[in-house]
Amino acid sequence: MKLATLPNDTADGALVVVSRDLSRAVTANTISHSLRAAIDDWASVSGSLQALSDDLNAGRSKGDFAFAPKMARAPLPRAWQWLDGSVFETHLDLATRAYGLPNPSYEHPLMYQGMSHRFLSGLDDVPFPKEEDGIDFEGEFGIITDFVPSGTTAAEARSHIILLTQLNDWSLRVPGRDEMTRGYGWIWAKPACSMAPVVTTPDELGEAWSNARIHLDLAIHLNGMQFGRANGREMRFGFDELVAHAAYSRELCAGTIIGSGTVANADYKIVGSSCIAERRGIEILEHAASQTPFLRYGDRVQMAARDKNGEAPFGAMDQRVVPMRAPEKAV
Amino acid sequence: MKLATLPNDTADGALVVVSRDLSRAVTANTISHSLRAAIDDWASVSGSLQALSDDLNAGRSKGDFAFAPKMARAPLPRAWQWLDGSVFETHLDLATRAYGLPNPSYEHPLMYQGMSHRFLSGLDDVPFPKEEDGIDFEGEFGIITDFVPSGTTAAEARSHIILLTQLNDWSLRVPGRDEMTRGYGWIWAKPACSMAPVVTTPDELGEAWSNARIHLDLAIHLNGMQFGRANGREMRFGFDELVAHAAYSRELCAGTIIGSGTVANADYKIVGSSCIAERRGIEILEHAASQTPFLRYGDRVQMAARDKNGEAPFGAMDQRVVPMRAPEKAV
Repeated sequence: MKLATLPNDTADGALVVVSRDLSRAVTANTISHSLRAAIDDWASVSGSLQALSDDLNAGRSKGDFAFAPKMARAPLPRAWQWLDGSVFETHLDLATRAYGLPNPSYEHPLMYQGMSHRFLSGLDDVPFPKEEDGIDFEGEFGIITDFVPSGTTAAEARSHIILLTQLNDWSLRVPGRDEMTRGYGWIWAKPACSMAPVVTTPDELGEAWSNARIHLDLAIHLNGMQFGRANGREMRFGFDELVAHAAYSRELCAGTIIGSGTVANADYKIVGSSCIAERRGIEILEHAASQTPFLRYGDRVQMAARDKNGEAPFGAMDQRVVPMRAPEKAV
Repeated sequence: MKLATLPNDTADGALVVVSRDLSRAVTANTISHSLRAAIDDWASVSGSLQALSDDLNAGRSKGDFAFAPKMARAPLPRAWQWLDGSVFETHLDLATRAYGLPNPSYEHPLMYQGMSHRFLSGLDDVPFPKEEDGIDFEGEFGIITDFVPSGTTAAEARSHIILLTQLNDWSLRVPGRDEMTRGYGWIWAKPACSMAPVVTTPDELGEAWSNARIHLDLAIHLNGMQFGRANGREMRFGFDELVAHAAYSRELCAGTIIGSGTVANADYKIVGSSCIAERRGIEILEHAASQTPFLRYGDRVQMAARDKNGEAPFGAMDQRVVPMRAPEKAV
């Protein structure tokens, strides 16, 4: 099934079930008042949500209204935990060689804890304080868990992956370099991420959910020009292994979101990149200097995973980079 | 005023107002159902909570029941955001010299984003997966904010600091070293922190809240022996500057907790340390080898900030290190 969140007067928004083709939706507020609440109680409510979805997709129900991604907030407008991996070997190899970053040992996946109290929708403008900070996108896949006990193994982790998502992990590369050098991860460099309009259960992807990886091309366009279309299949660690890694010394609360890091493929010369920093790294390796600029205010970034029929199972993201407004002064 | 959280059937617990001497408490559920909810609505509810506190402290009310720290959960059993600084120059200088860590430039404070979906109470047992991971405590002070717009300055930040707290940022030093080298911050090394039983408004500390720093000794005992009593005043950056730093490219949601990092003083030879790693670093510098072991299961760690009368404004923490239980297998 596919789920989305519409705005209402609450911080978490209202849960709706969306048809497979994203054209129709049915309100689910009699089952759960928000997606966040539904995930907290997944074993009890997912069956009822699935029944709504089945009726909608079989034509037994017309749903309550026509759905459009622009109506939606992020499926989880806030979450208690966002842990972002970086496990595409091609991306890490290029970054290591181009920027002299430490070579990952691959004994464990790379992972950082990011800001989770706000996720932007896939169609929101994205505010940044300064163009000079090296504004960049990162096209990623992600998963959402139910409650995961600490010490959970990768094999056990698979059943804890209840929903799949697509994300843009917006990044500021200039402060990011400094922050990474200090070893503490990122505060300035990682403001709120954006989340595609619709989350899906793993079964919804059919064979494209395999080996705990999302085998879909992630089509990225910058100002209308294709930038990349790398496939999610080449993760060095699967999402099951990322869940197990995250749960070594902590429980994962229900609604934990875990990301793949920037999607990248070995044939990057054909499929392109999922962030500007990687393309600039390739330019450094090939031409000794980067050419592609980071983003400027007004730039437009579109992202949509595509299945073999060209459909976008998570809906399409389409966002503009804008200046951050000065805070309103206290009166 | 002083506030605490008692267990009930909710994830956030029940808000109570506690008397200055921590002996009595009054339920505040007619004002706000939890501390987290009260912080979301601070401008509206803090006056009513203050009135309860004033009546309790003036003897006009006897309160509803006798309070004991062991009754309490963490004041915020979960929070949307936990950002931990590390801004005690003595601590950083010792770590730099003893362990060859990168020398902080002090252009900006060091800060990482930590796990915030669970805070243990100051009297909970603390579970860890392996003794060999180098289990350590970190005695810290912290603040809690209301909503902070991005771009807020340090001067503006002071009015956003609504509550003060005392924390133990439990750490695993062996995986922590590896994680820091990778630049992504900490996942394995930073499981749930513990929070002292009571949070206070800044005015409650009198002159001990000055220059956006907590001028109190943090008394730490390990298995009954004094380990340290460093004072919170020697922060290189005040909490106002930490708030402004955190809010550069993001809004801070109400209920954001920001930590000071391990409390340390220039006269560390007299006052001791607030974590084992620092003491081991001093031993390396003085004797070329560390002697103090990290924690073992059964070890007891007590922490209490003390004012000049010897009172503990946040209540006393008293915890034991225990083995993590294996997860229950799915049936």
